[in-house]
Amino acid sequence: VYEILARTVYGKRKRTEVGVDRLVNEGAYTAAYPLHEGPFKLPSHEIHPDELNQRQVLHYYWARWCKWFKYQPLDHIREYFGEKIALYFAWLFYTAWLLPAAIVGTLIFVSGVMSMDTNTPEDICTSGAKYPMCPLCKTCDAWNMSDICTMAKLGYLFDHPGTVLFSVFMSFWAVTFLEFWKRKMATLAHHWDCMDFHEEEQERPRPEFAATAPTVEENPVTGVKEPYFPEKTRLSRMFTGSMVIVLMLCVVIIFLVTVVMCRGVISVMMYQSGSPVLRTEAGTIANICSSIVNLGFILVMGQVYTALAEQLTKWMHRTQTQHDNAFTLKVFIFQFVNFYSSPFYVAFFKGFVGYPTNYGTLFGMRNEDCGPGGCLIELAEQLFIIMVGKQLINNIQEFIIKVKAWRQKRTLASVLGDNEQDEPRRWEEDYKLVPCGGLFEEYLEMLQFGFITIFVAAFPLAPLFALLNNWVEIRLDAHKFVCEYRRPVAERAQNIGVWFNILEALSHLSVIANAFLIAFTSDFLPRLLYQYKFRNDLNGYVNFTLAYAPLNYTDYPYKAFRDNDGMYTLFYWELLAVRLGFIIAFEHVVFFVLRAIDWIVPDVPESLELKIKRERYLAKQALAENQEALL
Amino acid sequence: VYEILARTVYGKRKRTEVGVDRLVNEGAYTAAYPLHEGPFKLPSHEIHPDELNQRQVLHYYWARWCKWFKYQPLDHIREYFGEKIALYFAWLFYTAWLLPAAIVGTLIFVSGVMSMDTNTPEDICTSGAKYPMCPLCKTCDAWNMSDICTMAKLGYLFDHPGTVLFSVFMSFWAVTFLEFWKRKMATLAHHWDCMDFHEEEQERPRPEFAATAPTVEENPVTGVKEPYFPEKTRLSRMFTGSMVIVLMLCVVIIFLVTVVMCRGVISVMMYQSGSPVLRTEAGTIANICSSIVNLGFILVMGQVYTALAEQLTKWMHRTQTQHDNAFTLKVFIFQFVNFYSSPFYVAFFKGFVGYPTNYGTLFGMRNEDCGPGGCLIELAEQLFIIMVGKQLINNIQEFIIKVKAWRQKRTLASVLGDNEQDEPRRWEEDYKLVPCGGLFEEYLEMLQFGFITIFVAAFPLAPLFALLNNWVEIRLDAHKFVCEYRRPVAERAQNIGVWFNILEALSHLSVIANAFLIAFTSDFLPRLLYQYKFRNDLNGYVNFTLAYAPLNYTDYPYKAFRDNDGMYTLFYWELLAVRLGFIIAFEHVVFFVLRAIDWIVPDVPESLELKIKRERYLAKQALAENQEALL
Repeated sequence: VYEILARTVYGKRKRTEVGVDRLVNEGAYTAAYPLHEGPFKLPSHEIHPDELNQRQVLHYYWARWCKWFKYQPLDHIREYFGEKIALYFAWLFYTAWLLPAAIVGTLIFVSGVMSMDTNTPEDICTSGAKYPMCPLCKTCDAWNMSDICTMAKLGYLFDHPGTVLFSVFMSFWAVTFLEFWKRKMATLAHHWDCMDFHEEEQERPRPEFAATAPTVEENPVTGVKEPYFPEKTRLSRMFTGSMVIVLMLCVVIIFLVTVVMCRGVISVMMYQSGSPVLRTEAGTIANICSSIVNLGFILVMGQVYTALAEQLTKWMHRTQTQHDNAFTLKVFIFQFVNFYSSPFYVAFFKGFVGYPTNYGTLFGMRNEDCGPGGCLIELAEQLFIIMVGKQLINNIQEFIIKVKAWRQKRTLASVLGDNEQDEPRRWEEDYKLVPCGGLFEEYLEMLQFGFITIFVAAFPLAPLFALLNNWVEIRLDAHKFVCEYRRPVAERAQNIGVWFNILEALSHLSVIANAFLIAFTSDFLPRLLYQYKFRNDLNGYVNFTLAYAPLNYTDYPYKAFRDNDGMYTLFYWELLAVRLGFIIAFEHVVFFVLRAIDWIVPDVPESLELKIKRERYLAKQALAENQEALL
Repeated sequence: VYEILARTVYGKRKRTEVGVDRLVNEGAYTAAYPLHEGPFKLPSHEIHPDELNQRQVLHYYWARWCKWFKYQPLDHIREYFGEKIALYFAWLFYTAWLLPAAIVGTLIFVSGVMSMDTNTPEDICTSGAKYPMCPLCKTCDAWNMSDICTMAKLGYLFDHPGTVLFSVFMSFWAVTFLEFWKRKMATLAHHWDCMDFHEEEQERPRPEFAATAPTVEENPVTGVKEPYFPEKTRLSRMFTGSMVIVLMLCVVIIFLVTVVMCRGVISVMMYQSGSPVLRTEAGTIANICSSIVNLGFILVMGQVYTALAEQLTKWMHRTQTQHDNAFTLKVFIFQFVNFYSSPFYVAFFKGFVGYPTNYGTLFGMRNEDCGPGGCLIELAEQLFIIMVGKQLINNIQEFIIKVKAWRQKRTLASVLGDNEQDEPRRWEEDYKLVPCGGLFEEYLEMLQFGFITIFVAAFPLAPLFALLNNWVEIRLDAHKFVCEYRRPVAERAQNIGVWFNILEALSHLSVIANAFLIAFTSDFLPRLLYQYKFRNDLNGYVNFTLAYAPLNYTDYPYKAFRDNDGMYTLFYWELLAVRLGFIIAFEHVVFFVLRAIDWIVPDVPESLELKIKRERYLAKQALAENQEALL
């Protein structure tokens, strides 16, 4: 049975609504897949390289750890797995681009560490009991500014002029990378002869679509009668889909608020514990705990939503490509909010606390303030936990796949046990493997691109972590495809589809986010303005940032640019103008330069352009000659 | 002689470096042109419409004033003049889009006029001698705030909440227009079968290029030996070209400064004349005078530069299309600065005057301040003069062409005088016409697009003027092409080339310029903030905007948010923050929506997309069948 199935699919490479997919869908067969070319292990005896099968070649030269320093053998991958999967591994060209970003990021981080001691905010560490500060909760005691000396020093690590430079660098990096990715994609598409591949004309309707479409209409392109979804049902389904997304996003926000409240509760508990260590580190501990809780929520919500999105996208899209694009966009928008809402909150919305006698509250709890090291350090902690935590979870998932594969093998061994004395046939061997899950999960790793571009000001080591992760990921994926998955049906593709648009949107968003991060979250501009206005060093800066509460309250200072009535001072407004001016200048300059890069770097390399033109010219000539000969 | 020439060119429609162009270039022939199809005048006797020649049809149904309300017969134009010229007339589709803009603009203007009386800045007009103001030049006297009542009223015309709305509207209008223009272009290109037209492969080198190219190389596309410019000469020429542009721009800036100084001199002269009328209107009169001088400079510089650019672009570009694009870009950048530098100066750089005891100066003259009505009214005056003045000059140029045509006819009549008893032959008739000057000058009218989008906040009537101008322009151009020009060689074109990129850049620039204009030049935000902060009406606003000079100077107030030491007040910084915040909000919202529009509106209409796919599908089928048949 497998043999016939495998042959049918592999021979035709075409899936119609009366074909094998439908039979599998209806349970007539348990599986249908192309066959691997043989075992991936090299035979124990000596063998000439030419006698190896493709799978062995791929395994030996590509899917092993010891090949970590090698490029991807894209042509071989394409030959064995088809263009779509080869394009995914070509996408990992991004890993090569991560290298310079990781190096610069590490340098920035190291320079931060080096200059940490020379740039101590002296007022904080040497002040002793000079500045008893306003209590952080209703029942807490006042605390001394000097308690947070270490945190302030650490804060400098994430908030020094180098980070500003680095975020500018990363904005340019992201856009330049995308420009060159376009060129790479064009080159590959031409090399693989996919340039004129138009999915919609050549793809058949998906079986799910065909099964559920209510009417049959003539396809305006091919003129063949086909299942069809009327415009009206389409609209109502789109509306339902959007509603579900909005609903799920609300759930995400609710979880976010829960996490915020949980953080508040933890830190209050720790302040009240009385231990001085717990008290000064309360913010950090609360932040770490809540980030872990948050990560849990993120992963669970992600699973739930992906399942939901699969249901929502199941029917309406005619071709697999359309379906994939719609599904991708749907899941990505959700996952984006899911992953990034918490960092966004910390970066931009935390710290609106009001002032003594007039605190802003949420459900009766005082709004959170950022810890003594500034919001950037909290953001960095959170990013670290989400990013590294997610990568850990991913690796666990890869492990689960291995376990699954092993279990499948076991089950089959017991079923086919009597057969085992013979050499098992190829389709039996392959049946023991895990069905290929598609590339969606792999591409979803692109969320990483957001982490390393959007919040790069807070976490200059992000590109380094991403680089390490991807380096491992490549070989893991290679091993998975070569050894653990059944061979997927080869599919053609011209490019990475909607993912490219997502990357472009991310890279633009990152410029905006970086501008706001530097302007509002970092301490860079207040320091600069202080230096410019009052003196050329930062002595007295800490004192300058303190405000005193209204007279009839306590006389502990708190951190703000306010006068005794709680009104903003002139300096506050000057600073606000400088901040907003910085955003305008930053965005205009960066976007203008990006435009210029986009304009100067052609989307198709010049040599390829010439080649294409030459081919077109020759084709025309040939056609003309042919016609003349016929006449 | 003409006959042969005309036949050669018209028959082949192909210009090689050994062809007729070269002979014309070397003076062997005086001219070479395709022939018109006959006289454009209808014969005096009755005639059946089918017997009319194409030129008569075009003249009768298109190129007459009484057809002003008709659409452009694009297919006929294309048939007679070729795709390139037809695309120009299709571009005038822009005129149709001007209609809604003109209507909304006029409504905004009318609503301004209507509400002018109800929104009088009362403090100004009723203050009498209450506010004697700081003198405007060293030797001038103080003046009363109430003197400028009329100007303040007029200023409201150009600066009321409606204008803010209108500039938002125009930003959207511009981008939506461009989206639909893309669709129109795609539709026309398909309709005229130019979609796969690739100029570079199919165009021959220009004779000027062939004549000056130092070496011969194999063309990588066609494999034919061709004249060639080595990369090195190319770079050095590009460098020279850029230098010339920079130099010319410097000259423009020098002229601008001259105009500014001239304005200063005129207004000082008028202040000193002592006449109260001249004094209050000094700013306006000086502004109008200097704008006229400025317009003169602009036109002269434009002529000089265009001649220069022609020389600069002459050699280096292989094909006519490349040459045209390079020339267009070169001239446009220059003309843009040439035309817009003065309005930009008035809109954004005028008014940084400093304060009493500390005036900013330029070459010993106090920096200009905007007149009592605000900068917007001066901007409006200037735009009006430049825009309408330019259109007048254009019409004069059209007239000059007519005179030229008439002179050419006269000269020829005297030369060919003896022949005149016979019916003159077609090529003789056509030789009497003016050679077609190309479309460059026509497209340069697109500078208008900048006036109606970039400075629209200052001049809501601009779209109306543009509409009227273009309506006239269409028929003038039609008449010129049908009756006064020799028939141009038909050229193919897929789109309007680099002009589209220019329009796109203009439309983006307009969003930024409008944001800054509303934030900084208009009085909209200060009023709003005043209303929000102090009371809900504008009573006392005028008084609030006044500052008093340092004590040891005079005690006349002047307009600024400063305290007695000349330092900015808290309100100033608040206002600055609001202004910058407004810019950020405005730009982000508008650009985001524009992105969304760009994303939602497909560049190729859906029905056309289907048609193209269908055609491609059928072509493939046919090819496959053909191959099968051959086998």
